[in-house]
Parts: sequence; C-alpha cells; structure tokens
Amino acid sequence: MAQGIEHLPSPSLLLDQDRFEDNIKAAENLLGSFGKLMRPHVKTHRTPELARLQLGGRARGVTCATVGELEAMAAAGIDDLLLANEIVSPDKLERIAAVAATSRVLVAVDSMRGAQLLSAAAVRAGSNIEVLIDVDVGLNRCGVRSAPEAVALARMVLEAPGLILAGLMGYEGRLRAAVADRVQKFDAGCESLEQVKSALETEGIKVGIVSGAGTSTFNEGLRSPVLTEIQAGTYAMMEADLDGLDLPFKRACTVIATVISVTSDGAVLDAGRKSIGCENGLPEALLPGASVLKINEEHTLLSCHRPVALGTRVMLFPSKVPTTFNLHDRVWLIRGNVVERSVPITARGRSD
Amino acid sequence: MAQGIEHLPSPSLLLDQDRFEDNIKAAENLLGSFGKLMRPHVKTHRTPELARLQLGGRARGVTCATVGELEAMAAAGIDDLLLANEIVSPDKLERIAAVAATSRVLVAVDSMRGAQLLSAAAVRAGSNIEVLIDVDVGLNRCGVRSAPEAVALARMVLEAPGLILAGLMGYEGRLRAAVADRVQKFDAGCESLEQVKSALETEGIKVGIVSGAGTSTFNEGLRSPVLTEIQAGTYAMMEADLDGLDLPFKRACTVIATVISVTSDGAVLDAGRKSIGCENGLPEALLPGASVLKINEEHTLLSCHRPVALGTRVMLFPSKVPTTFNLHDRVWLIRGNVVERSVPITARGRSD
Repeated sequence: MAQGIEHLPSPSLLLDQDRFEDNIKAAENLLGSFGKLMRPHVKTHRTPELARLQLGGRARGVTCATVGELEAMAAAGIDDLLLANEIVSPDKLERIAAVAATSRVLVAVDSMRGAQLLSAAAVRAGSNIEVLIDVDVGLNRCGVRSAPEAVALARMVLEAPGLILAGLMGYEGRLRAAVADRVQKFDAGCESLEQVKSALETEGIKVGIVSGAGTSTFNEGLRSPVLTEIQAGTYAMMEADLDGLDLPFKRACTVIATVISVTSDGAVLDAGRKSIGCENGLPEALLPGASVLKINEEHTLLSCHRPVALGTRVMLFPSKVPTTFNLHDRVWLIRGNVVERSVPITARGRSD
Repeated sequence: MAQGIEHLPSPSLLLDQDRFEDNIKAAENLLGSFGKLMRPHVKTHRTPELARLQLGGRARGVTCATVGELEAMAAAGIDDLLLANEIVSPDKLERIAAVAATSRVLVAVDSMRGAQLLSAAAVRAGSNIEVLIDVDVGLNRCGVRSAPEAVALARMVLEAPGLILAGLMGYEGRLRAAVADRVQKFDAGCESLEQVKSALETEGIKVGIVSGAGTSTFNEGLRSPVLTEIQAGTYAMMEADLDGLDLPFKRACTVIATVISVTSDGAVLDAGRKSIGCENGLPEALLPGASVLKINEEHTLLSCHRPVALGTRVMLFPSKVPTTFNLHDRVWLIRGNVVERSVPITARGRSD
C-alpha cells in the first residue's frame, strides 16, 4: 500500500509525521515543566484527525477561529471547544448553541450586545455556553479595552441565562523574532490581563481560565504568571519566520511540486499561490543549489546553480502554514519518503 | 425564493450579475470592432457555469491554467479547451489525453521532452491533442526563448503522432497601469511572437492561432497585428488595480462580511485572508466613511469616521479575484441587493 512521495499528485500537501509527533512531544514536555495547559489552535490545519493527535496530556481541548471550524471539530468527536472570536450573526449564534448542546463550548465575548445575543441563542437551544471575556492586549482588534469595561461585561455574563463565566482571553498577535520590543509587548499584554483579573477578583468574580499566547510567544506564555493555557497552533508544523525564537519545533509541512520548464539557470514548478500560502514570504525549496525567485498563481520560479531535469519533484516549505492547509482538500502523511495515508482537511474553507 | 444579501452566510462571495453581463458585452463589442477572438481564462473563477455565460459570440473556448480546471470545464460540457501551461507529469498527461478523446484540447509546449511525453499520452489514449508552441515574451517563466528553438520544436510536433500543431502562445504577464514602459514591453512581446511566426512560415509551417494578452493588456491585445485571440479572465469581474488602463469593465465581485466588534473609531469584520485574496493589496470597503486598515486570517480592520453598529453587513472589493474565488465553494449571484441563486465553484482547489 505504501508508496513513495514521487508518485503523489503534483502539487500535494505533505506532513512529516515524525516531525509532527516530535513537535507535539516537545510542547508537552515544556507545558509539563511549567505547569501550563494548552488548547491547540486548529486554524493552522483545519483537520480533525490532526487535532485528535494533538490532544491528550496537557492539551485538553481545541481553539477554533470560526464557527465552521467548531462544527467540523465537533462532528469529529472533539467535545471541548473554544471559539476564540466574537460572533454576532443570528445564524452563527444558533449553530454555536447547537454544538453546545452536546459539547463543552467556550466563546470569546467583548460587548454587552454580543453577550445578550449569545445568551438568547443558548436559551433558545437549551444549551449552556461558557464565556471568556476577550481583553485587547495590544493587537487593537477585538477585546475590551479597560478593566471597568471587563467588570461590567462579566457582571452581565454572570446574570445572563444560558451563559457561564469561565475566564479571560487575550491574544497579542504574532510577536515574531523581528518585532521590536517583543518581550515588552508580550509583558504589557499580560499586565493588562492581570489588571482585569484582579479587578474582577476584587469584585468577588472568580476567574478560572486565562487563555492566550501562541507559537510565536510560546516560551513567554510558559513563563507568564497570569496565563493558564496557551493557544498555539503553528508549533505542530512550524514556519521559517518563527526560527530565531528558540523554540524546539521543527518544520513538518511541505508542498511537493514538479519541474515543468527549465532554462540554463532556472526551473519552473507547477505550484503557486493557489497551493502555497505566502503571507510570510516566499517558500523555501528543498533542492540543493536552488532558491525561490518568485511565485505566481500556479508557478514557482527557481534559480538553479546546477541543471535540473524536467519532471524533477521538489519539496517547498511554505512560509505560512494555515493559509496553505486552507488551499488543499487533503494532506498526505509521510514518514521519510514513504506516504502512509492522506487525511481530509474537513474544515477547509470553513470561514463561515 | 429571492432573498436580500443581508441574509447570506457571512462571509460570502458575491457576483453582481448585471455588471458581469455588462463586462461580457463590452468585451464582445471590442473584440468585434477589432476582429479578434477571445478564449476567456477560467483561472479567474474556476466556475463552469460562469464560463458558459462568457462563451458564444467571439469567445470560442476557454483557457485553463491546470489539468484540474480542464477536467472541471470538460465535465460541464465545455468542449474547446486550451491548457495554457506546460505538463510533464505522467498522470496529468494521461488525464489530458482522456479529455482530448471527447473534446478539442490545446496544450502549451516549450520543450522537446514535453512534446514527446504529450505525444505518447495522446497515442496511448487514441486522442489527438493540438499544440501551441509557448514563446517566452518577457515574463521569463515558461516558453521557448528563440525563433530557431521554436522552429525545431514545431518540426518535432509536426512529426509526433497524436499531436497537431495549431499555433503559438505568448503570455507577457500582468502589465499593470503602474508598470514602467508597459506598452513597450507588450510590443516587445508581440515582436517576439512575430519573429517566431515568420521563422515558422519561412519554413513552410502554417501558424493558425496566436494566443496571448490578458485583461491588463486587453486594449493592446486588440490592436496587436500578431495576436488572433486574447486570454483575458479578470475582465468579467475586474479588480481595483486594473483601473487606469482605460478598460470598459466594472468591478463585479465582492465579499460580504459582518461587523463583529466596534471601537470609537473602528470596526472589525469576520472575513480575512482565508476568504479574500490580497495579492494586489487590501480590499476596499463599500461603507461610507470607512476604509480598510489591515487584514488578518479571519478579520478585516476598518477605520470608521462614523459609528458602525455591531452586526452591520459590509461589502468588500477584493484586490485579487482569482485567489478569492479559489477560497470559496460557491458564489452567490445577485442583482442589486437581491440574491438570485448560488453556483458551485467546481474547480476550486483544482491546481492538480
């Protein structure tokens, strides 16, 4: 049954299982040492079968970015689900409440109106939904902006039928190696969370979960006194631009493509931006003497110091894993150069 | 049955049918005036139902970028198909030959080896495949680089069983309004095509089709003495960065999203890079007083000069239509603010 990667369709998305498993073990070890929990973010792969491999140990549930991801994970039997996003559309609220009828569901909320809508949907479905007050910790996107605002919202959630106040959430965005003052920015975010937490506790409101950080702030998240759990996703596959952050994770995700045209000092591959997410830069070619010059919709141009034969298979490391997975219907699991099986990316396209 | 766009799932991909039809008519009129044919490029939408609406009149067949697109269009009954790309993978060659058993198929070729492989696949399937010699006209991607190379390849194609030499192809890439010397670059490309054409004719080799140009060079393509047909795709939907090229096409494609969080001077929408292609820049918000500041995977941040209510629906013009369509499973056809129906984007993800 096992076949070599040279027989895969071109282009195909590949996941190196040994590296993927090593990344999960490395994360487990760190989480154990620091006494933190993890809620792997499934926006990275949108693949329930991979999410299940990440769970267990200190990873007690998953983080989703969209209702579509939540539904896909619940349909695969994952029953502890954080939706780390604000939801106000009537149809989406109903869908969340339906999932909450059979699974533990936590949802981020940053407005009174949002809490009212979520409460009404929970009551209609006869569900209980747990709420994390979303605190803006520097991303300037969603989240309440002050401790008094958080206290008022928490009080409302405590009184809202169908809602259970479970804690806080604060996502600081991607603080890469190159970001100036990254540690200071992360610490400022944690300081905001601490202020909100202590304002709530002063009012007698218990704060259970404090969820935040990601792969780019994994090490800082482990050491943060306020965070109880980390929402990392990319750690399991890694990306080139997360190098330099002293993380123990190895790059596990590639796209395999084929040389379709050659010149004296270059080659063209049959994979482009419709197969490879490029938001963090060009992919890297795993071909000695070759480097990626440019990428178009269906083509990647290589500069080559040695001749390359037409039909050569070339593996590319994408710079952005979540948008790469979202372009494919399935991912092929490999060990070395042997393909073991493919699994469907069930939540591909589920931004709904 | 008809519903308002405010009831669509969020985010959703929308196509304004009136504008789409106007764009097709405008293209037809221009093609007629200049006596040119068109082969609409379906990489723009990957949607057979839209391709069929573009055909007729001077649009005699479609252009595809991938074998997956070719198969999806053929499955929908479109029987004149140009694959404007080099193919060397054995499985893909077989799939092309299978389509060619029942439809007219033309394929770009730029190497002897490529022509041999295509010929062998055609023979095995008992098909005839038409060949366009691909000429590099300045994109520095695929394509033969000289007239002698083209002549040698054409001779080989003429003798190869299962292959029919149909003409030339030259794609010069996207010469946007901002590209320096765009007309000179386009003219240099046409000059290359003319040189190759006359070298072939000198050898007694007939050149039928000369296919090239696109939406960004539509006007130049019409006036080119060498091109017989234009491979435009985006013309039917348009994009902001093609403004300034004096084209009669109107923007017809939007993504509708919902305000999920508000601040005193901003709002956050529930659509991001996983729903909107951003390769040519940020999308534009169709909301008075609002402009797009930033886009993340599932969020678009707006700066707003007036208060915006939670739950407000906002339409966004994507800067890149082909990668936007490729993120969605269906597109909703609207007239004004009324939704008529949705059609499946059958070839979504078909970069295989």
